[in-house]
Amino acid sequence: MRVLILGGDGYLGWPTAMHFASQGHDVFTVDNYLRRRIALDTNSEPLISTPNLQERARLFKSVSGRTIDVSIGDCCDYDFLRSVFERCSPDCAIHYAEQPSAPYSMCDYRTARLTLDNNLTATFNVIWAVKDVAPRCHIIKLGTMGEYGTPKIDIEEGWITIEHKGRSDRFLFPRQAGSLYHTTKILDTDLLWFYVRTYGLMVTDLMQGPVYGLRTPEADLDPRLIPNFHYDDIFGTVVNRFVTQAVAGIPLTVYGKGGQTRGYLNLNDTLQCVALAASSPAEPGQLRVLNQFTEQFSVNQLAEQVQRVGTRMGFRVEITPIDNPRKEAEEHYYNPAHSELLKLGLKPHYLTEDVMGEMLETVAAHRQNIDPAKIMPRVRWKN
Amino acid sequence: MRVLILGGDGYLGWPTAMHFASQGHDVFTVDNYLRRRIALDTNSEPLISTPNLQERARLFKSVSGRTIDVSIGDCCDYDFLRSVFERCSPDCAIHYAEQPSAPYSMCDYRTARLTLDNNLTATFNVIWAVKDVAPRCHIIKLGTMGEYGTPKIDIEEGWITIEHKGRSDRFLFPRQAGSLYHTTKILDTDLLWFYVRTYGLMVTDLMQGPVYGLRTPEADLDPRLIPNFHYDDIFGTVVNRFVTQAVAGIPLTVYGKGGQTRGYLNLNDTLQCVALAASSPAEPGQLRVLNQFTEQFSVNQLAEQVQRVGTRMGFRVEITPIDNPRKEAEEHYYNPAHSELLKLGLKPHYLTEDVMGEMLETVAAHRQNIDPAKIMPRVRWKN
Repeated sequence: MRVLILGGDGYLGWPTAMHFASQGHDVFTVDNYLRRRIALDTNSEPLISTPNLQERARLFKSVSGRTIDVSIGDCCDYDFLRSVFERCSPDCAIHYAEQPSAPYSMCDYRTARLTLDNNLTATFNVIWAVKDVAPRCHIIKLGTMGEYGTPKIDIEEGWITIEHKGRSDRFLFPRQAGSLYHTTKILDTDLLWFYVRTYGLMVTDLMQGPVYGLRTPEADLDPRLIPNFHYDDIFGTVVNRFVTQAVAGIPLTVYGKGGQTRGYLNLNDTLQCVALAASSPAEPGQLRVLNQFTEQFSVNQLAEQVQRVGTRMGFRVEITPIDNPRKEAEEHYYNPAHSELLKLGLKPHYLTEDVMGEMLETVAAHRQNIDPAKIMPRVRWKN
Repeated sequence: MRVLILGGDGYLGWPTAMHFASQGHDVFTVDNYLRRRIALDTNSEPLISTPNLQERARLFKSVSGRTIDVSIGDCCDYDFLRSVFERCSPDCAIHYAEQPSAPYSMCDYRTARLTLDNNLTATFNVIWAVKDVAPRCHIIKLGTMGEYGTPKIDIEEGWITIEHKGRSDRFLFPRQAGSLYHTTKILDTDLLWFYVRTYGLMVTDLMQGPVYGLRTPEADLDPRLIPNFHYDDIFGTVVNRFVTQAVAGIPLTVYGKGGQTRGYLNLNDTLQCVALAASSPAEPGQLRVLNQFTEQFSVNQLAEQVQRVGTRMGFRVEITPIDNPRKEAEEHYYNPAHSELLKLGLKPHYLTEDVMGEMLETVAAHRQNIDPAKIMPRVRWKN
């Protein structure tokens, strides 16, 4: 397969590129380093600095013999993106090229506008490049479980049949998200669905939960191939933040009551899911929605696991809830379906104590880089 | 009340401005003439040319004694829009400032991108201007009944309670539209709802059907105050197109089977609805959705009424279905609720034979302006 990965320098993009290349596919990547620029601007750089995408590809070639093609440019520039599609003729385009931080999208007008413009325009341009240049290309779009929010009913995989006043019809599952970033993913889905049903495009929209993990078979080939690890309040997910706080001896910053429950998955399972989606594409005119996570935890459960494993490893781990900077339900019903990827063949890697221990070890090996100024939330979006 | 009308030069914007001014409110208008530019670019200029917004305001002042403030500028320019809100301190902002043509949004990449960028950015900027400068300002947003599409279940007014596997919750009514233009209105609603529930904004989202009519009490004060009348395939609604075709002796161009059913309303009822919404604002944190139409017709019913009235007036009116240039259901279930505006006090003006006759007379008085090149659809969005 010819696989085009948009956002190839990201936490998911880079491991995905190595994974497809190691399986013998022709891999093309695009990135404009937006995440690196925002990380620099907001003092949110990763714990472990990583080479740029060109250097990563060169390093990977030297250890694996596999080539990853790199184009540096902006998916919001349609002439550029179209020329990439023309040159690559992809069978599959994996679209990760979005501003991925919820807190960043909630800072101020400028960051909100950048998030809205960047994410919608990138998705719009991918749709048009496929429609104009590669109509048989399967789009795999990274959505988020956050599109659904935390409704009081069971969350289905993308679609729901609604019975109403004696009649029924099938609709996209209702979505209402907790940040502007998550809301842009809702808008992406709406845009994709419009163009899918109008022009018969083939799209898989992956509703992914937060991903954790730093090790993949390919990343393990050389320490400089490690995925990005952010532990700050802008780009760091809760797992990364807690692991880093445990190593640094800073009490784990549970936001509010800590009952916020989400579906999580291991980075290796993201790679499996995307590969499974690529190998059995959506049909023309189908918007296939897959809920991509393997197990669900509350924030309190994660904090307790980090405390348990960290304490056993000799770290002093306390848990100190802080005022929640976000507007979100801190205790809620949560029962999302996630069977379709299992049916396609996903073999989950769970968040065991061993996996947690490995993350703590990796972070401990770079503890000298931990900057306590990055720990506490800097963005509030409560009234 | 201090009323700010965004898109004040439009088919609805200009009559709305005159209506609020004549009731003694302080009226401020903004427009960047986007519709005039697109009409020029696409050879879609109105049947009756109208003075620019500054001249319209001057004329209206001379016949009514009422002042309408005019700012020429782009709602997508946040510095400009924010300065307008600062200067006006509106109690109510009526947001019509969008690219309103479905066919234009479906021409090509450039027109689609313009529609997406313009409509989303204008809405985003209105939200931020209110949040930053005028948090007690009630936003009245013009949505469209087209957001709902033509589902197989009854359409409620914006919200629906879904019972699912023994639990229930309330959600925005599912929406899937027939053009990119209509889809941008769905995205607008999603954006508004996110910011409403996060920051407690006050928003009324009017799901309006196609509007017809050229006469309002204020427009009747001087012929140069007439609302815009487009009869082309880009900006002309089906009523305008049929009325013009009847006068020109061109067979009425029913698209496909003609069973496409929508809710319609008289321009005077739009003015009533907006005034009713303004005088009883949404609550803080409420996204109030009102379905704004008074009666529903199929395309065939409209064609038959135009034929009946036109023939009686001496026009030779034939009906000749043509291949449908749009991807849409030509026969479908349609049962949308529309009781909330009636409860607020709306007194409907129906599409009687007299009203149809008046439109035919007005168009006949300008028949020398009818350009047959504007009659047939120039944009297709079928596969």
